[in-house]
Amino acid sequence: MRLMKDLYIKDILHNRVATSSCSTMGWIKSKRTSKQTIFIDLCDSTGCIQLVLEKATLGGDIFNQAKKITIESAIEISGTINDTKNNREIIVNSFTIISAATKHFTPELRSDFDVFDEKYTSHILSNRHLYIRNPKLMAIQKFRNLLLYHMRTWFFENDFLEIAAPVLTNTTLYDAESTAIPVNLHGQSVFLSQCAGYYLEASAMAFEKVYNISPSFRAEESKSKRHLIEYWHIKAELTFGNLEDIINIVETIIRYLIEKLQQEKEIENIFKTLDTEFCLDGLKTPYPHISYEEAVSLLQENGCDIKFGESIGNEKEEKILFEKFRSPLWLMGMPRSVEPFPYVIDEKDNRVTKTADLIASNLCGELLGVAEKIYDIQMLDERFREKGLNKDARYEWIRDVHKMGCVPHIAFGMGVERLIRWLMNIPHVRDAHPFPRIFDRKFIV
Amino acid sequence: MRLMKDLYIKDILHNRVATSSCSTMGWIKSKRTSKQTIFIDLCDSTGCIQLVLEKATLGGDIFNQAKKITIESAIEISGTINDTKNNREIIVNSFTIISAATKHFTPELRSDFDVFDEKYTSHILSNRHLYIRNPKLMAIQKFRNLLLYHMRTWFFENDFLEIAAPVLTNTTLYDAESTAIPVNLHGQSVFLSQCAGYYLEASAMAFEKVYNISPSFRAEESKSKRHLIEYWHIKAELTFGNLEDIINIVETIIRYLIEKLQQEKEIENIFKTLDTEFCLDGLKTPYPHISYEEAVSLLQENGCDIKFGESIGNEKEEKILFEKFRSPLWLMGMPRSVEPFPYVIDEKDNRVTKTADLIASNLCGELLGVAEKIYDIQMLDERFREKGLNKDARYEWIRDVHKMGCVPHIAFGMGVERLIRWLMNIPHVRDAHPFPRIFDRKFIV
Repeated sequence: MRLMKDLYIKDILHNRVATSSCSTMGWIKSKRTSKQTIFIDLCDSTGCIQLVLEKATLGGDIFNQAKKITIESAIEISGTINDTKNNREIIVNSFTIISAATKHFTPELRSDFDVFDEKYTSHILSNRHLYIRNPKLMAIQKFRNLLLYHMRTWFFENDFLEIAAPVLTNTTLYDAESTAIPVNLHGQSVFLSQCAGYYLEASAMAFEKVYNISPSFRAEESKSKRHLIEYWHIKAELTFGNLEDIINIVETIIRYLIEKLQQEKEIENIFKTLDTEFCLDGLKTPYPHISYEEAVSLLQENGCDIKFGESIGNEKEEKILFEKFRSPLWLMGMPRSVEPFPYVIDEKDNRVTKTADLIASNLCGELLGVAEKIYDIQMLDERFREKGLNKDARYEWIRDVHKMGCVPHIAFGMGVERLIRWLMNIPHVRDAHPFPRIFDRKFIV
Repeated sequence: MRLMKDLYIKDILHNRVATSSCSTMGWIKSKRTSKQTIFIDLCDSTGCIQLVLEKATLGGDIFNQAKKITIESAIEISGTINDTKNNREIIVNSFTIISAATKHFTPELRSDFDVFDEKYTSHILSNRHLYIRNPKLMAIQKFRNLLLYHMRTWFFENDFLEIAAPVLTNTTLYDAESTAIPVNLHGQSVFLSQCAGYYLEASAMAFEKVYNISPSFRAEESKSKRHLIEYWHIKAELTFGNLEDIINIVETIIRYLIEKLQQEKEIENIFKTLDTEFCLDGLKTPYPHISYEEAVSLLQENGCDIKFGESIGNEKEEKILFEKFRSPLWLMGMPRSVEPFPYVIDEKDNRVTKTADLIASNLCGELLGVAEKIYDIQMLDERFREKGLNKDARYEWIRDVHKMGCVPHIAFGMGVERLIRWLMNIPHVRDAHPFPRIFDRKFIV
């Protein structure tokens, strides 16, 4: 296959060039000009290299043209590789402007400013189509690409089959009125999927081990650091397991992902560019467990206003839990009052479900949930009545699945952006998505 | 990792059992009863095996209980492996009902009926949550899983970075009023994505080679065999290439996919179950080319009512093209009148764009499109004016990308379900998706 560009900057930097002369294309990150010399930092997708443009070599006309090149313009250059004490550079002997940049942005798109500083947040979000070129935001996307590749490879190698659960659905996981995004489709009122679970459950009765990685939608009016309206959701279900099994599987996956990512040759550079550290807390399996009831007591003792049956998860509560355990933590047995209907009621304590939430370390909050899912039609109907869904015809197909040889099955669900935020030590989930959709912001991009 | 089920039916069939006794779980596909013996076909995700239940071994009570088990009930069994002249079977010495099926469906969910017969279409679509267990529909999903795995592996190994283009977007590819699905999001009017292209284009100026595989949406009121309202879309863009490059890349990918799929150990069984043949026409690269203008002439000569500037693609037209070439076929240079704005106008003939559509063999119609994308802001503005979008503020961010060192770039887009339909020789794209959304059908599942 012939591609027009056959030499990338990393190839030049790492000696994969046959001769001392080379040609490549890229974008101008920055430029410093003196009377006789122009220094340009040229970037492409793989790295940056210094170009040296000398008046003596290029001649006055071309040198003057080069002086006027704007930041972010794309150029093609040829030159000679020159190794200095600290760096490799290219002494340019010819250059062509491929495409001149005609707008100017502050901070410069590819400059090394702190993209997480809140004073830039709104500006970056409004110009995400351009700041996607920023090296820090690029480093996050490179990490995301590696993470998803290894995640899918794990599923493939462990015989999980990918199921395309639809985005357009009748059946919401949470309360449709307050948390689902409605769509009017040729007169039929449907929703954007909140969770692939129902479709995976039906598919698990055929394929036994299934997964889905695709966008999921929540209309929640939340401004927290871990909510997006549209996020990528990793969901898996498998038959014939219990809560302990799914906890083991999740711990295995997190350990696998961290170990595979550590072995990636780009990983060091990613974290160096981002100026953060790879969070390795996930390697310390098994993670400690605390029951929901014990957690409520602990929080009450520490002055939190929480009662049995309410959700745990505001920042104060998570801080107390983290300071006690300093580790990822399994919060076991969420109360039936706050959990949606699909999860098994604990036969030992019918106030709670056979579920667990994994609370990430470093105050990143809830990372994922695991559950034993209901397979018995009587228990399902009991939960439908409890949630007021028993007369809702849209859920009838889920009852059908439970009437047709439905076997015990287990599930986990995890937000891709939350996982990235935790592993990369970045402040907000929005930066883990290349084009985040955030409550209360108009779409510009 | 411990999983409750450690022995699958394929393990028993293929001798991966240590002793002659075994236990497993599965679903009852069918049952034949005589006075002294019951024969059950037991299925799981990996295969089917015959169970032999003998009154003499099990005793009268348990034998009578077994007689009453309904089709699709899930059971756990133990027994002794017995090899007959033609088959391996299990002589059952104990069984437990995990979950009894309490409804009955005709045809039986896992039976080998012709799922493509139109007399079953509506019934299957209304009960897709259950017929997903059908061996033919399962075979298609197993193929889909392998196909997507190899597709992503190709992208990964060829340094394409996965970009999560958002589903919720301001900017439609085609006419928003007639072809996009609108969403009211907290008072803002947006759309479900028709194409990841704009986001990939912006990202390509950072990462150079990018791709996205995710759901895409078209509100078209089409009842053709190759339209779904929601389908999975493979999109890739890369910088610094031309139309010839992207044609080469697509041919490379199709050949790679077919070759990898041919090597999969499950592939023979998939096509045997489905009772179709793997379409290998894609291996015959390079595919022939015909210009749009020549194609219009050819169609006119054969009695089609088509004029230069109109779309090619109804069944009659495709039949004429297929009978002439009997191969996948590149239809070169679509007219600017029917193509959306992002594609380069051909400098040699400004009535057409630098695009090509790949017409699949076997009357499967348009499989994918490739293009040189506009990088010059003047050409972009000319096309915006032509399409009436020049005063539409929603497209302003795309103009920004073209003002900031936008370089020549190329793209392809392909529907996953169309590719599967073609490669698997199945009549309709709907069966390539586990839970298809089809115009004019209410959502039941």
